[in-house]
Amino acid sequence: MTLGSLMRSEIGEQPAVLAHATRNHAEAQQVGELLRRSPPRFVLLAARGTSDHAALYAKYLLEVRLGVPAGLASPSTLTVYEARPDLRDVLLVAVSQSGGSPDLVETALRARACGARVLAVTNAPASELASVDLHVDVQAGVERAVAATKTYSAELLALWLVVEAWRGGDVRRAEGVSEEAARHVDRSAEVAALAADLARYLDGNRLVCTARGYSYPTAREAALKLMETAYLSAHAFSSADLMHGPIAMISRQLPVLAIAPAGAGATALAPVLASLRERESELAVLGANAYRAPGELGYTLREVDEDLSPITDIVPLQLLALETALARGLDPDRPRGLAKVTRTW
Amino acid sequence: MTLGSLMRSEIGEQPAVLAHATRNHAEAQQVGELLRRSPPRFVLLAARGTSDHAALYAKYLLEVRLGVPAGLASPSTLTVYEARPDLRDVLLVAVSQSGGSPDLVETALRARACGARVLAVTNAPASELASVDLHVDVQAGVERAVAATKTYSAELLALWLVVEAWRGGDVRRAEGVSEEAARHVDRSAEVAALAADLARYLDGNRLVCTARGYSYPTAREAALKLMETAYLSAHAFSSADLMHGPIAMISRQLPVLAIAPAGAGATALAPVLASLRERESELAVLGANAYRAPGELGYTLREVDEDLSPITDIVPLQLLALETALARGLDPDRPRGLAKVTRTW
Repeated sequence: MTLGSLMRSEIGEQPAVLAHATRNHAEAQQVGELLRRSPPRFVLLAARGTSDHAALYAKYLLEVRLGVPAGLASPSTLTVYEARPDLRDVLLVAVSQSGGSPDLVETALRARACGARVLAVTNAPASELASVDLHVDVQAGVERAVAATKTYSAELLALWLVVEAWRGGDVRRAEGVSEEAARHVDRSAEVAALAADLARYLDGNRLVCTARGYSYPTAREAALKLMETAYLSAHAFSSADLMHGPIAMISRQLPVLAIAPAGAGATALAPVLASLRERESELAVLGANAYRAPGELGYTLREVDEDLSPITDIVPLQLLALETALARGLDPDRPRGLAKVTRTW
Repeated sequence: MTLGSLMRSEIGEQPAVLAHATRNHAEAQQVGELLRRSPPRFVLLAARGTSDHAALYAKYLLEVRLGVPAGLASPSTLTVYEARPDLRDVLLVAVSQSGGSPDLVETALRARACGARVLAVTNAPASELASVDLHVDVQAGVERAVAATKTYSAELLALWLVVEAWRGGDVRRAEGVSEEAARHVDRSAEVAALAADLARYLDGNRLVCTARGYSYPTAREAALKLMETAYLSAHAFSSADLMHGPIAMISRQLPVLAIAPAGAGATALAPVLASLRERESELAVLGANAYRAPGELGYTLREVDEDLSPITDIVPLQLLALETALARGLDPDRPRGLAKVTRTW
């Protein structure tokens, strides 16, 4: 079998997965409407790995679109330290592809025992996590590659649909995401060329991804894909955090990949891009044309609604990780020492 | 002037700073007692860089010791996206050495306009942030080195004192931290030897720090110090997150530094240490003797209360960053492109 064929095939399934989930949004809409009728005061999000980046995306949606304060849970406080916080009026959102990681199941059960309602967002409606309380199935179909791709974009879409229904918005606004994902898949050759160009700067096995706002989860997820398939030490920083220390390590031996789709996030990112250019960093920008400089490596993103943009911006970055792994002679379908379902306690 | 003499001198000031702040705890105690009388339902923590790790430490204290749900704020939601969440019953804790970063000041002001109470924890009682609402001065004295050291441990102590007073505990339990910090400073030569040994594995300019629970902020702060002074691509992962993907990149070219003071966090970390040893990773453990293996690089931590341990465990790690920078011919007092106060928007 060709190296990485599983991962490539599942990246390519995303237009169909997103089209299916956009049409079949009744479950997400019902959960959103229920939360609209009896909203929590505060949302805690619990997840690991790729799903943690979906949770971070949801945090931005909840705060910006809904005005509900939200935070990422530290599962160890409930499990390792057996904390019993007062979680009345709290919604715990647990995001997990498999629905099976013991520490997440335990976190959900303990949160409920402390008074929280629990919403599980999984790709496994028969899992233990899915049965705790409210559940939304992300409907991505069986994912076989170890590196999660289609379950990530499907998690983002499911979370977007819940929040949009919760705020009484128009869930039909998501109807374009499937086509947008398809456009990215059609540009695979362009991403492969970018990966080949970028490879010249990856002698040190190091990379920094940066973004601001809605795209920060995209930068985190891109870095994770590059870590687990191409074994790069790929850091992700919000551009504000990058300036508070890590910027010191940036040099020509440490390239920077910025994610800058059109929107307020990229407007806030722009001064950091200017600063990186002043330092003569090796910079590649995956973003709107306005944020790309002539002659710089990059990939142009069409303008879409900024809150929906992360659902599809990840597609070229998944392809970039795949192509970078292949160019380094690695099989992205067999990351060293990883299994599909990680069980942590 | 000797390279790194500012940073070394401020690391060495920590026993005196902690002794002074432990004795002069009236302000922290008053704020804690006030919060005990009228507690918030939720806490949001806002900070950048080193102070963000102090905020993360506070999150564990709040959830584990107090049972108050807490989350790290994403300042961009209030500033870049101008979200107006309902923050009644919320305490926003802003942690900042300088009290001067515009996005933090803006976050604090906007949070208050949305109904939150604001507690600023700073080393700058005359700063704009300190004047917003409640304030605790961390009393570290002027910090001149760009890499924050004494303000970090002082922030942790101030946050611990507030939480301990809030829960009606015994703030005198902190009386040993100054002596414990002094013991670490006295072991500087031992840390220098560890840095020299570790240097053999740092050809790739890469390192991973890992820990669980209360020590996760310590791992994050150690990684930041190594990034900003020694220009290493130093990642930090909670040991649970490490297993969800990044573990794939670990190889003999990518050493791992684990932080494992005695306590529930290290008990949960132990299986991950075993897994790293099975993979024949280059592992160094800064921790209790029970978590160190014969012949492995490391540094032994005496047993202290786990919740207080991060205040002093960071001292040998600050020294490790300093010595690693010096061994690489860098001046930790002049990190490339950093100023003492970072202003981000």
